[in-house]
Amino acid sequence: MSQRLVIIGGNPAGMSGAAEARRGDPDLDIVVLERTQHVSYASCGMPYWLGGVVEPRERLLAIDLDTFREKRNIDVRLGAEATEIDTDGRAVVLSDGQRVTYDRLLIATGARPVRPPIPGIETSGVFVLRDMDSAITLKEQLPRVSGGRALMVGSGPIGMEMCENLCRNGIEVHLLEVADQLLPTLSPNVAAPVAEALVGGCTSTRLGSTLESIEPGDDGGILATIDGRTDRYDMVLLGTGVKPNSELAAAAGCALGPRNAIAIDATGRTSVEHIWAAGDCATAHHRVTGEAVWIPLATTANTQGRVAGRSITGRPGRFPGVLGSWVSSAFGVGIGATGLTVEAALDAGFDAEAIERTGRNRSGYMPGSESTIVRLVWDRSSRRLLGAETSGGDDVATRLHALAVAISARMTVDELAEVDFGYAPPVAALRDPIELAAAAVTGDAP
Amino acid sequence: MSQRLVIIGGNPAGMSGAAEARRGDPDLDIVVLERTQHVSYASCGMPYWLGGVVEPRERLLAIDLDTFREKRNIDVRLGAEATEIDTDGRAVVLSDGQRVTYDRLLIATGARPVRPPIPGIETSGVFVLRDMDSAITLKEQLPRVSGGRALMVGSGPIGMEMCENLCRNGIEVHLLEVADQLLPTLSPNVAAPVAEALVGGCTSTRLGSTLESIEPGDDGGILATIDGRTDRYDMVLLGTGVKPNSELAAAAGCALGPRNAIAIDATGRTSVEHIWAAGDCATAHHRVTGEAVWIPLATTANTQGRVAGRSITGRPGRFPGVLGSWVSSAFGVGIGATGLTVEAALDAGFDAEAIERTGRNRSGYMPGSESTIVRLVWDRSSRRLLGAETSGGDDVATRLHALAVAISARMTVDELAEVDFGYAPPVAALRDPIELAAAAVTGDAP
Repeated sequence: MSQRLVIIGGNPAGMSGAAEARRGDPDLDIVVLERTQHVSYASCGMPYWLGGVVEPRERLLAIDLDTFREKRNIDVRLGAEATEIDTDGRAVVLSDGQRVTYDRLLIATGARPVRPPIPGIETSGVFVLRDMDSAITLKEQLPRVSGGRALMVGSGPIGMEMCENLCRNGIEVHLLEVADQLLPTLSPNVAAPVAEALVGGCTSTRLGSTLESIEPGDDGGILATIDGRTDRYDMVLLGTGVKPNSELAAAAGCALGPRNAIAIDATGRTSVEHIWAAGDCATAHHRVTGEAVWIPLATTANTQGRVAGRSITGRPGRFPGVLGSWVSSAFGVGIGATGLTVEAALDAGFDAEAIERTGRNRSGYMPGSESTIVRLVWDRSSRRLLGAETSGGDDVATRLHALAVAISARMTVDELAEVDFGYAPPVAALRDPIELAAAAVTGDAP
Repeated sequence: MSQRLVIIGGNPAGMSGAAEARRGDPDLDIVVLERTQHVSYASCGMPYWLGGVVEPRERLLAIDLDTFREKRNIDVRLGAEATEIDTDGRAVVLSDGQRVTYDRLLIATGARPVRPPIPGIETSGVFVLRDMDSAITLKEQLPRVSGGRALMVGSGPIGMEMCENLCRNGIEVHLLEVADQLLPTLSPNVAAPVAEALVGGCTSTRLGSTLESIEPGDDGGILATIDGRTDRYDMVLLGTGVKPNSELAAAAGCALGPRNAIAIDATGRTSVEHIWAAGDCATAHHRVTGEAVWIPLATTANTQGRVAGRSITGRPGRFPGVLGSWVSSAFGVGIGATGLTVEAALDAGFDAEAIERTGRNRSGYMPGSESTIVRLVWDRSSRRLLGAETSGGDDVATRLHALAVAISARMTVDELAEVDFGYAPPVAALRDPIELAAAAVTGDAP
């Protein structure tokens, strides 16, 4: 009789794990238990569906259900909510009491938004973007709110993407950030172009401000009190961080790591026999420090899922670690970061320093040339590049790719300054902002 | 009395050499001898000025003449054509007989277009794009040719840029290429998207065809015979390669290297005492093979000029070598290459192999998502990445930056496949085409 792999969670980590396990073992009985009615969609694309940039919703499906079920012979069960893992009986217990036995188990339960503990936070009309169900609920509300006012709480990358897409729905967005700048994980000068892009748009910004309480208004609106002042909004959207869905694993005895994410090794194994974990619910090791971290990202989930799928089917494969590379676009400004900040590098024992330089992404005289800032973090003793941030033109993501390659290759800033970059006026500057920043360290640029 | 540095040539290599020498020695007497009336302009931008994309012409000036003369105290002499280097007398002899003595000499004479040796090649109406003077001459002709037909001979990157910009002038361009594909230095699949972009445009293409002769027509037109058939054109533009302006240096005893470029060491020194060379007239060593090569590029010229400026003023500095990285854009398709082709790698003794994968530069469901091909060349025994080519979206240049970083860092394809790249639907795909190509080698992608 064939062995059974049970996977809890049908998104990037779970489904890439399922697909990879199938590649490794054509006979394995693979069951995916998905709490909602949706699997294998691009969560990161949801803001753009909400904004009407992507239509219809089905375009967000990476692979359709029939492909998984029929072509790959994976038993995907929708509406199957796991409530307990019985490690002695090797079974997952579902909310309807059903038991699904496993030989090997992959936990890919993801993460969920955090609701800040303030009065009235559960008021109707206060939304979070957790999954496709929550996106559908939110989308249904948008026509009602169009022409009205929304309060967006939090200005991280996803918050900014949501802000942009609420604007696309004709909604006036009030952006609230508790820190004293937008995109607080970025350095001030790197985040600044986004703040500039917001001026004159559909958005107003309140920095250094705290949401104190929420209550329903008389007219179906929501009254939100911020720094003592109460205003009426038609909708409140929370972008105040996420936390790992690790409770099920913890109850089964799986050791937890940073931020209470499920601790796994580089093959995806948890501390409990026969149980693997992958994706936003799990830890990863950082490629620069080697330390366990929790940085939930779709890329990591996808790769960890594949690695777990290999390990589960007895093939070699190790997760190479994360740099925490992320990119985004906010109101036409590309943003992104990879590797360590100065603060994180100092914490990790590096003699870290940062430098920033602004240049053009294309020759300054060409249409489409945009100002681009590159910030490099490096170690003064080894000269090694440890981290980078950038914002600016439409090619920020691939510029960050170059910086992620450099960090992965353990390049020094001196070596980075000496890379032979291509140049042509319509697509690249004579000296790319990366080169300008690195060469400023070596003294070969102002 | 202060020492005198004489620089022959006022473009990237010469002027960056002058500026760097000034930084290194505030008292040095620096004289730049420029044959034409133009210095320090962006040659690579000339096609876009011809196309009317950049106006006025002065926008192509990197730094204006007054800045060089007054702020940097550099004696820039226009219309000063060097005809001889008297190494015994340490003097440059000009065409008017004047002698300019030097203590140190930097030769930055650049390169010039090759005119193929066919009958009638010197006919009036046959143009080359050599320098700003030739660009001005060409620009004057464009109104006459608008609405008419031009023959563009050669489809290298510059030829394609010229083609695009002639089209912008309302000229029907007939593109002639002796090889059996456009952009013959690129691999066929990488070049193919450019050929597709040309379909239905203002351009017709003849591949595998040879220009046999040219003669003036009766009506001011030009009769060009290609593969035995004679057609009338209003203009012929040659893009059939360049050669180094090394005759002056050779006559002064400087050793020549590949393609008769002036042989220099990593500090820019020629074989003759007190003489340095930099830029398109000189060799460079290849970073992968270590061999001397001649790959004239503005980026190399700029860097070699700075290195020579340092060396001339007694400061350390070595040219790090070239990868021959180039990028361009042809009819909306970004193109570029870096490092070795399979053929060059085999020649250099590597056990070279190539792989190509096509992916999206952004999530496929997003507007602006473009198909992008990445070709990787690697060494089977060491797994080291040796070269890359790419074509596709508007972010090809920065994607090539990432590949140039990887080659410079001596990364293996396995390491490249494991880089943690950033992802967000509007700016990057979940798996970048670089990752897809590298992971196809390692077996972690289809």
